[in-house]
Amino acid sequence: MIYLDNAATTLHKPPQTLKALVEALNTFGNSSRGTHSVSLGAAFSVYETRVKIARLFNCPKPEFAAFTLNATHALNIAVNGLLEKGDHVITTDCEHNSVLRPLYRLEEAGLITLSFLKTDAQGRADYLSIPEYVNSRTKAVICTHASNVTGNMADLEAIGRLTRERGLLFIVDASQTAGFADIDMQKMNIDVLCYTGHKGLMGPQGTGGICLGGPLSIKPLYCGGTGVQSHNKRQPEQMPTLLEAGTLNSHGLAGLSASLDFIEETGLANIREKEQRLTELFLRQLQDCQGLTLYGDLTAPQRAPLVSLNIADLSSGTAADILAQQYDIAVRPGIHCAPRMHEALGTAERGTVRFSFSYFNTEGEVKQAVQAVREIAKTVKRQ
Amino acid sequence: MIYLDNAATTLHKPPQTLKALVEALNTFGNSSRGTHSVSLGAAFSVYETRVKIARLFNCPKPEFAAFTLNATHALNIAVNGLLEKGDHVITTDCEHNSVLRPLYRLEEAGLITLSFLKTDAQGRADYLSIPEYVNSRTKAVICTHASNVTGNMADLEAIGRLTRERGLLFIVDASQTAGFADIDMQKMNIDVLCYTGHKGLMGPQGTGGICLGGPLSIKPLYCGGTGVQSHNKRQPEQMPTLLEAGTLNSHGLAGLSASLDFIEETGLANIREKEQRLTELFLRQLQDCQGLTLYGDLTAPQRAPLVSLNIADLSSGTAADILAQQYDIAVRPGIHCAPRMHEALGTAERGTVRFSFSYFNTEGEVKQAVQAVREIAKTVKRQ
Repeated sequence: MIYLDNAATTLHKPPQTLKALVEALNTFGNSSRGTHSVSLGAAFSVYETRVKIARLFNCPKPEFAAFTLNATHALNIAVNGLLEKGDHVITTDCEHNSVLRPLYRLEEAGLITLSFLKTDAQGRADYLSIPEYVNSRTKAVICTHASNVTGNMADLEAIGRLTRERGLLFIVDASQTAGFADIDMQKMNIDVLCYTGHKGLMGPQGTGGICLGGPLSIKPLYCGGTGVQSHNKRQPEQMPTLLEAGTLNSHGLAGLSASLDFIEETGLANIREKEQRLTELFLRQLQDCQGLTLYGDLTAPQRAPLVSLNIADLSSGTAADILAQQYDIAVRPGIHCAPRMHEALGTAERGTVRFSFSYFNTEGEVKQAVQAVREIAKTVKRQ
Repeated sequence: MIYLDNAATTLHKPPQTLKALVEALNTFGNSSRGTHSVSLGAAFSVYETRVKIARLFNCPKPEFAAFTLNATHALNIAVNGLLEKGDHVITTDCEHNSVLRPLYRLEEAGLITLSFLKTDAQGRADYLSIPEYVNSRTKAVICTHASNVTGNMADLEAIGRLTRERGLLFIVDASQTAGFADIDMQKMNIDVLCYTGHKGLMGPQGTGGICLGGPLSIKPLYCGGTGVQSHNKRQPEQMPTLLEAGTLNSHGLAGLSASLDFIEETGLANIREKEQRLTELFLRQLQDCQGLTLYGDLTAPQRAPLVSLNIADLSSGTAADILAQQYDIAVRPGIHCAPRMHEALGTAERGTVRFSFSYFNTEGEVKQAVQAVREIAKTVKRQ
């Protein structure tokens, strides 16, 4: 199979990830519960993972990096833990339902109001218009670093400058860019960064996290056992304990830790360069293909390694089924949990076929995918 | 090492668990995202796990079994998703902070009121007094199936009869009993069962779940991408999607699925019989040991496979350190995230040393632990 659905989850993980996961399952106790060697072993591994995450994102302290089940969990902590009654929030049409639904829920409850930045037909949000939407109630700007539909990226440094100048919180969803793009929480003035471990970071599922840019006042989404301050009726206030009730997935995090090693050793720039090269090859080879519609800002200087397209009048689901069944190529059709982006692109009904690339894909695979798309386009045209 | 901290997490997993986890990491896409073979492979595996969980607990439908990061996550969904302003809740001193802290938080916010059943010095809650606490506001009874400090168990069938007769919700924390005790949600009238995957079920960390006894009206704790109904501004209402926003830990769940196979093949009754035998051996061989204080109702017909004790005047932490460093025996000292139980036992300051057994422990290990406790008791006495 040629797996080109890496924006949903990466199928191919670094070899050391599997090894670390196996070792963890065979040797770990419960992290931060007890002081015997296997419990300490798990706790040490989790702490190491925190250190690596903090280094990758330039998060000021490892303690500010809490782990979650996935990015959705992290984003819900951010939205529900930071916003209060009366707050106004600025966000974009590029967002995934993991941002939209938590915001809509607070809006529907009459707790917050929302503004969406204007988006053009290429899916580009007008980030520099943020100041026009700011009012005395505005608490935060929440945006994804890259659209999971178009691959269009936001200039976090520019947005962070605007939010910092106005005293707004800057909350970033890095689900599509962690492990691909440079993210520097301090330079970019990011207050909260949410990410997942199983996509670009090439770790196991069941991992992800929320990183704070400083000692923020944030309410935990849930509370419970922490192994420390157990007589305290409230969740302890120190990070990361505040946001980490219950037993962590230390097995999965050990795998993520090894994946982070792989990224450090390989070099994030080298990973990005390869993924960009594969994406550009795909786009270039399809340039003259008749009957294709390509979406997004394809000439942007940097884009996440994914391409959304449609073939003639085929529904995105049909095209993906043909790719899977006749060519053994895995892509993702539909609206990718990003309804507003598909409305902006005019594909709310039809969806798009998304091809997304990873470091472990090859040029040969990309060329086969190109060939498949060309053949499907030709067949459809003939009919 | 002799690992006797299985109530925190089981260290030794069935061999097929590791195998399944490895295969999942090598072959799974994102469950319920897309229709290509690796995505369907993950989705099928997750569904199979649901079926096995539903069978184990006699949950009416696999769809009523949603997966979570851990039991804490599940309990927070139950507490925050079912209780509403003005509700009164009956619970016990046996509860873990994963139940207590979510309840305290709602109480502190002025949303609910709480009643605690009376507990005796052996840590036995007076479950049959529940009717005395019921008032017109009472919405639910929440209790753990077994105390993680004493191993004392609740008679769920008797409690379920009381709650059903009075139209109360019955929410059960099975963290210490899933994979040990018979749990029949329908026979016991359990409305919500919360459990973890990495303790008695012998699965990987990062797994657990919440099972509903029927089509309950429950609010999700968080919302986000679901891969279905993506145009819906709200989290879809059907189970399990309602409670499963974001990417599931399908890797970990594949491991849990294999662990459930092991439990089915071995027989829950055989697992329980062995764990009880080890616990009884431990208790019997320490019967005449001078200077020990044992906690809990040790003559109860059924108890979870764990024993809390203290040795002479040693702090529980010191005793556990001696066991770890001089005997390479891993146990858990302190108050085990269960402050009210330790208050009932009079050990709120000192804590207890908890020995907890699993199916993979041996009689030889138990005898060595007994020998170690005897030696420590003798040494302390001599000093």
